[in-house]
Amino acid sequence: MGKGVRIQELPGLGTRYDVDLHSGSDRVSIVVGRDGKRHLYVFTTAGDEPTAVIELTEEQARKVGAVLAGTFFVD
Amino acid sequence: MGKGVRIQELPGLGTRYDVDLHSGSDRVSIVVGRDGKRHLYVFTTAGDEPTAVIELTEEQARKVGAVLAGTFFVD
Repeated sequence: MGKGVRIQELPGLGTRYDVDLHSGSDRVSIVVGRDGKRHLYVFTTAGDEPTAVIELTEEQARKVGAVLAGTFFVD
Repeated sequence: MGKGVRIQELPGLGTRYDVDLHSGSDRVSIVVGRDGKRHLYVFTTAGDEPTAVIELTEEQARKVGAVLAGTFFVD
């Protein structure tokens, strides 16, 4: 599962995960904060400037994550 | 788990999931295609135009989903 994901500790902040998309300049970085909050950075152009950044609570991130992973269900 | 997620069938295309973020105009929509591909639409401004759109294969989506959901592990 680890292949294609680079993990970097950000001291005092949390952990950064870069997921390689192999599709042009599209990239996704997720910073999981020590408080559980996630910041999702979406890059659709080359360079260091993200196209979009959104903040997700742990619960919101779990829902988005479940939909993406295909494990979302309605209870 | 279903609360805060609106699901809409898109005939012939797949299923659209809108995840409510309760944070200003930030929104996330995910379209899970019948071929397994996911399109992630990120909105950070009001209106119908997404700020960023990325396409993910099923495997890439699983990785991003696991990181977001907090179930990512390196094997």
